[in-house]
Amino acid sequence: MDGFFRFFVPTLAAALLAGLSRADEGMWLYNRPPRELLRQKYQFELTDAWLEHLQKSSVRFNSGGSGSFVSEEGLVISNHHVGADALQKVSTEAKNYLQNGFYARALSEEIPCVDLELNVLQEIEDVTSRVSLAVPAGLGPDAAFKARRRVISEIEKESLDRTTLRSDVVTLYQGGAYHLYRFKRYTDVRLVFAPEQQIAFFGGDPDNFEFPRFDLDICLFRVYENGHPVRVSHHLGWSKSGAADGELTFVSGHPGRTDRSLTMAELEYLRDVQYPATLARLKRMEVLLAAWSGRSEENARRAQDDLFGVQNSRKARDGGHAGLYDPMIMGVKSRAESAFRERLKSHPEHAAAAAAFDRIAAAQEVIRQYRLRYNVLEAGQGFSSELFEIARTLLRAGEERPKPNGERLKEFGEASRPSLELSLFSDQPLYPDFEILRLSDSLTWVAEQLGFGDPTVQKILAGKSPRARAVDLVHGSKLQDVALRKKLFEGGAAAVLAANDPMIELAHLVDAEARELRRTIETQDEVKKQAHAAISRARFALGGTDSYPDATFTLRLAYGMVKGYDENGKTVPALTRMAGLYQRSAEHKNRPPFDLPTRWVKRESALDLNTPFNFVGTHDIIGGNSGSPVVNKAGEFVGIIVDGNLQSLVLDFAYEEVQARSISVHSAAILEALEKVYDAGELARELSTGRRRH
Amino acid sequence: MDGFFRFFVPTLAAALLAGLSRADEGMWLYNRPPRELLRQKYQFELTDAWLEHLQKSSVRFNSGGSGSFVSEEGLVISNHHVGADALQKVSTEAKNYLQNGFYARALSEEIPCVDLELNVLQEIEDVTSRVSLAVPAGLGPDAAFKARRRVISEIEKESLDRTTLRSDVVTLYQGGAYHLYRFKRYTDVRLVFAPEQQIAFFGGDPDNFEFPRFDLDICLFRVYENGHPVRVSHHLGWSKSGAADGELTFVSGHPGRTDRSLTMAELEYLRDVQYPATLARLKRMEVLLAAWSGRSEENARRAQDDLFGVQNSRKARDGGHAGLYDPMIMGVKSRAESAFRERLKSHPEHAAAAAAFDRIAAAQEVIRQYRLRYNVLEAGQGFSSELFEIARTLLRAGEERPKPNGERLKEFGEASRPSLELSLFSDQPLYPDFEILRLSDSLTWVAEQLGFGDPTVQKILAGKSPRARAVDLVHGSKLQDVALRKKLFEGGAAAVLAANDPMIELAHLVDAEARELRRTIETQDEVKKQAHAAISRARFALGGTDSYPDATFTLRLAYGMVKGYDENGKTVPALTRMAGLYQRSAEHKNRPPFDLPTRWVKRESALDLNTPFNFVGTHDIIGGNSGSPVVNKAGEFVGIIVDGNLQSLVLDFAYEEVQARSISVHSAAILEALEKVYDAGELARELSTGRRRH
Repeated sequence: MDGFFRFFVPTLAAALLAGLSRADEGMWLYNRPPRELLRQKYQFELTDAWLEHLQKSSVRFNSGGSGSFVSEEGLVISNHHVGADALQKVSTEAKNYLQNGFYARALSEEIPCVDLELNVLQEIEDVTSRVSLAVPAGLGPDAAFKARRRVISEIEKESLDRTTLRSDVVTLYQGGAYHLYRFKRYTDVRLVFAPEQQIAFFGGDPDNFEFPRFDLDICLFRVYENGHPVRVSHHLGWSKSGAADGELTFVSGHPGRTDRSLTMAELEYLRDVQYPATLARLKRMEVLLAAWSGRSEENARRAQDDLFGVQNSRKARDGGHAGLYDPMIMGVKSRAESAFRERLKSHPEHAAAAAAFDRIAAAQEVIRQYRLRYNVLEAGQGFSSELFEIARTLLRAGEERPKPNGERLKEFGEASRPSLELSLFSDQPLYPDFEILRLSDSLTWVAEQLGFGDPTVQKILAGKSPRARAVDLVHGSKLQDVALRKKLFEGGAAAVLAANDPMIELAHLVDAEARELRRTIETQDEVKKQAHAAISRARFALGGTDSYPDATFTLRLAYGMVKGYDENGKTVPALTRMAGLYQRSAEHKNRPPFDLPTRWVKRESALDLNTPFNFVGTHDIIGGNSGSPVVNKAGEFVGIIVDGNLQSLVLDFAYEEVQARSISVHSAAILEALEKVYDAGELARELSTGRRRH
Repeated sequence: MDGFFRFFVPTLAAALLAGLSRADEGMWLYNRPPRELLRQKYQFELTDAWLEHLQKSSVRFNSGGSGSFVSEEGLVISNHHVGADALQKVSTEAKNYLQNGFYARALSEEIPCVDLELNVLQEIEDVTSRVSLAVPAGLGPDAAFKARRRVISEIEKESLDRTTLRSDVVTLYQGGAYHLYRFKRYTDVRLVFAPEQQIAFFGGDPDNFEFPRFDLDICLFRVYENGHPVRVSHHLGWSKSGAADGELTFVSGHPGRTDRSLTMAELEYLRDVQYPATLARLKRMEVLLAAWSGRSEENARRAQDDLFGVQNSRKARDGGHAGLYDPMIMGVKSRAESAFRERLKSHPEHAAAAAAFDRIAAAQEVIRQYRLRYNVLEAGQGFSSELFEIARTLLRAGEERPKPNGERLKEFGEASRPSLELSLFSDQPLYPDFEILRLSDSLTWVAEQLGFGDPTVQKILAGKSPRARAVDLVHGSKLQDVALRKKLFEGGAAAVLAANDPMIELAHLVDAEARELRRTIETQDEVKKQAHAAISRARFALGGTDSYPDATFTLRLAYGMVKGYDENGKTVPALTRMAGLYQRSAEHKNRPPFDLPTRWVKRESALDLNTPFNFVGTHDIIGGNSGSPVVNKAGEFVGIIVDGNLQSLVLDFAYEEVQARSISVHSAAILEALEKVYDAGELARELSTGRRRH
C-alpha cells in the first residue's frame, strides 16, 4: 500500500537538474513530507509537531483559496481576492464592502458571510487498497467507474457517520492512489476586516501576476461555533520582522490543479483544444462584463467579483498556454516520454504501462469529440445563470436523492449534502439584469458553438432570439425565492416538475442529453485513470524516487527561498517597499487602477515607507494557493501568498526556478497598514499577540 | 443599360410597410436620387444644383469615414474618431494630440498629417455595358473573374490618364451594375483642431452606440495644394440654429457596407460563421490591447487608436449579430425569398435567376471551407504587424508590377499606385514592443486555428514559440526604414528577395498558398456576383421598383427626421443638451471614461447649458457614415453624424425606423464649445462665415 505514495512524477526540473542540487520543487503531501530533501539541502529537520501545528493552522476556503488561523480566537487571514466572493454577497449598492473595505471594531459588528464554508484538515487515511479491491482488473470502464464511485461514496459516508467530519476521498497520482481527507467544517464565518479593493488589488488586471507589486491583498474573518468565536488549538504566531531576503520559508495551502504528469497526448489536447477554447470563452466574458460594468457604477458593483475572476483566469491561462507552446518545456517532456516508452519495451512485465499511453491517447480523442457538447450542455457553459444552476440542482436532486447513495451523481452523495444545501439555499442577491446579460450571451454562444440548426439549440431557443429567450426565462422564473427552493428540494422530483418554472423546464429539456454526455466523459476519465495508474506503477518499479502528486485542492507543503531574479538584463529585488507604492501610483498619474484610497493618500507621512510590502520566493505554488500562509523555520507567519509572477504561470506543467516566483504580502506591511492607515490597532494587536484584549 | 439602376432591393421595411407611407429608408446613389419619394412624402424638390453642391462639399476619408468642406479655404470637418488615426500618427509620448487635443491658431501651426488621403466625388459614369461586354456569358468563373479584372483595370487606367482624377470602378447591386467614380484626390491635409478625446468620446466604450449621448466628436482639417489652402468652389454654409426636433434633414456620406440583398444562404453564413469568428477575434484583440494599455501610460497611447477601433467594431457587430438571430428580421427575409423563388417557377424566362439561389449557396459552401485559411494566411489575420504588411506589399509589388496592368492583383493596378505609395512610404511611427505584442498573439492564433501540426504553421513558427518567433522577426527586420522600403520598391523582385529580411522571408514563405486561397475565394465571389446579377434582373422584370444598392463606401444620400423614440416604456427625446453632459459625468463620480477635460470643468459657468449637444434622426446610415454632414433643406450644415444607437446596429441587414436612430453632434454645440471652451473664436468665425479673416 505504501508503494503508491512514492511514485516518480517526471518533471522538467527533475529532468533538467539531474545531478545538480535539487530544486525547490514540490507540492508535498502532509503524510509524505520532504524530510530528507530539506535535511540535505537546507539542514532543516521537519518534526511531526511542526507539521501538525502548520496543518491544523491551515484553512481551506471552499469558494477556492487558502488561509490560516492567526489567533486563538478563530481569526483567519486570507487574500482579499479569496474573500471577494463573500464580500460581494454581503455588499449592497449603499454599502459596497468589496470596493470600500470594512472593519468591525467589536465582535458585535462582525458580519456573517453568506454560504462561506471553511475546512481544516484533521486526518489523512490511505484507502487505496480498499478502492482497488472494489474495482477488480478486467471490469469495463463504465462498470469500473460505477464500482469506484460506489466504494468511494461508501467510504465517505462511513467516515462522516463515524467522525462527523467532512470526508472526501481524493484521487492522487491521476488514479495511482486514493486518500481519505477528513476536515473540520466551519460555516459560521464572519467578516472582520477588508481593505479597499483599490489597495488590495492595486494596479488591477495590468499588475496582476506581475512583479514588482504593491498589493495589500488581505482579508480577515473570524470563525464562530454556537454563536461564539471558536477557540482553536492551533494558530500561527506572527513574525514582526517577517520574511527576509535569502530566508528559507514554507507555504502551506491548497494548490488547485497542476498537469505535470500528463502524457504528451493530454498536453497536446490542452494546447490545441482546451486552452484555446477556454481562453476564447474567458475573453468573450471579459468583454461582456467590462462593457456592461462601464455603463453604471451599480453595474460595475454587481459584476465586480465575476469580472475579477474572469480576468484573473484569463491572465493565468494565457501564461500557461504560452508554456505549452514553449519548445523547451514540451521538448523535455516529449523526449522523457519517448525514452520511458522505449525503456518499457524491454520490460514485458510492464506491458500494461506500455499500452497505457495509447489508451490515454484514444480516450483523449473520444473526449475531444464530445468536449464541446459536454461543456455547453453539462458543464454549464451554455447557461451562465445562477437561476439555471439552481434549477438544475433542484431537478437533479429530485431524481438522485431517492437512489442508493453509491449510485448518485457525486455532488448528491450524502457526504456532500451539507455543502450542497449551503449553496442551494444561499440568499446571495440575484440581479435580473445581470442574469439576463449573462444568459443572453451564453445562449448566443450555444447557438454559435452547436450550430443554429442543431435540434437541441432549436429546443433551447424555442423560436426566440437569445436575448428574448433570456428575458422570458429570468423574468418567468420564481427561483430567486429561497423558501420556494427549500419547498421544491423537500418535495422531490414530483414537486420540482409540477412547479412549472421555465428555468426548471429548460434544465429538464437538456438533461437527458447532458447526463449522457457526462457519462461518456466520465467513462473516458476512468480509462485514463486506470492507464495512469499502470504508468505510475511501472515508473516506480523502474527506479522512481520520492515525489509528490499533481495538485488536487488538498493541503500541501511547499518550501523555497525568498529570492529575486533577473529579467531583461536587470535584477528584480526580492522585496518591494511601501515607498514604491506611491511611486507606481504617481507614474500612472494616480488614475485607476493605480489610484490610491483616500486614507492611503492622507496617511502617507505617517507610514514608515521603508516597510517591506510584497516579496517573491521560489515556492512551488499554483492557483488555489492564494491566501496560503508563508512561515519561517520557527513556524511563524512571515507573509501571505497572493499569486505568482508571469513566469510562474507555466508551473501548471513544470517547475522552474530561474525566474518563476511566488508573490506574497509581507507580514510587516500588514501590521503597519492596520496600525497607521486603518486605525485598527486592536486587530494588529490580536495578530501580534495571538489573542484579543478582553 | 438604365435598367440596372432600378433593381428592387427587398428590405424589411419595404416588406413590413407595404401599403403604409414609405419609411425614411435608403442610401441613395447621387446619380439616382429619391426625387419622387421626397416630393411625395415631404413635398421637397431635389434640384440638380442642390445635389451638386452637397456632392462636391462631401469628402471621403480613405482611412474610413466621411466629412465635408465647411469653408471656402479648404476647412474640412469630420469626427474625432475618424481623425483618430491621423492624430495618433502625429502624436508622440510628449505631445499626445489624440488624447489632449490640438488647436492651430495660425496656418503656420497646422500640422501635416501622415498618409491621409481625402477624396471628393466629381463624376459618376455608368460602365455596366462595357464591363458586361468584356465578360461574355458562358465564361467559367475563373476566366470571368480575370476578364472582369482586366476590363475594370483598363477603364480605371484610361480614366486616370485622361482626367488625372482618381478613378474607381464600383460594383453595385452585388454585381448588377458597374459605375466609374472619379474623385479629386487630396494628400496634403493638415490638422487644425481636435478636442480632448475625453470629450470627443465622452463615456467611452460604455456609451458608444448609446443614446442619450454627449460627445463633441469632431475634428477639423485643412486641405492644401501647392503649399496653400485649397480654394474650393463648394462648401456647406453653417446653420447657427442647427437641427430642430421634427425637421427633415439629409445625410451625405460614405456608408461602408450593408448586406441587405443577400440571400438566406449568405445571411446564415454571416450568422453562423463569419460574425462569430470575427467577434471572437475582436474580443481577443480587445483583451490583448486593453491589458497591455493598462501597464503604462505610454502603452495606452501607442494602442489607443487600435483599441478604439476594435471596441467600436465589436460593439457594432455584436449588435448586428443579434439582428441575425432575430426571428422577426430573418423570418421576413426568409418568407420573402421563398415567395420570390416560388414565383420564379412559373417564369421559365428567369431560369437563371431561379438557379442562382442554389449557385450562391454552393459558392458560399466553398467559401465556408476555405475561409479560415484564407483569413489567416491571406486576409492578414495571422500576421497582425505593420512590418509584415509592408513586407508583403514589397514582395508582391516586385512580382506584380512587371505584369500587364489588367493582370495584376487589384491593389497593384496603375490607378491605385498613388494611394499604394502613400501608404507604403508612410513614416508613421512603428513601435517594436507593440509590434511584438500583436504578432506574438496572432502567431499563437494561427497555431490554434490551423492546428499546431499543420505544415504551414510549422514553417511559420520555425521551431520557436510564437513569442520568441515574433521577437526575432520584429527585431530582425529593417523595414521600419522608409528609405530602404523605397529602395526595395524601386529595385523590384530581385532586390526584395536579396534583402534577406526575415519579415519578407515570412511573407514569401506563405505567399504561394495565400495567393491560391485568394484565387479560390475570388472565383467564388465571381460566381455569386453573376448569380446576384441574374436575380436582380428577374426582380426588376417582375415588378421591382426604384431602389438603392447595398452600401459600397461611395457617396450616398439619406434623408430623415430629427426624432426621438420610445424605449422600455420611456420616451427618449431627440436632443440632448450641454447640462446633461455634466449630469452624466457626476453620475459616474467623474471617473474615466466619464471624466471631463479640465477646461470643460473650468468653463462650465461660461456655457449656455441649454445648448443642444447631440441629436437623433431616422436617417439610414451605417459605419463609414461617421463624419457625414447633416444638412437642412437649405443645404446648410446642422450637425455631423457620429454613429447610430444600439437599435440601429441591425441596419446592416434591414432598415428599421421605430427605434433605430442615427446620432449626430449638433452644429450649435460645436460653435458654443469652440468659442467658450477652446477660445477658438477665429475658427468658429470661419465656420459661421465660410472664410478666414485675413
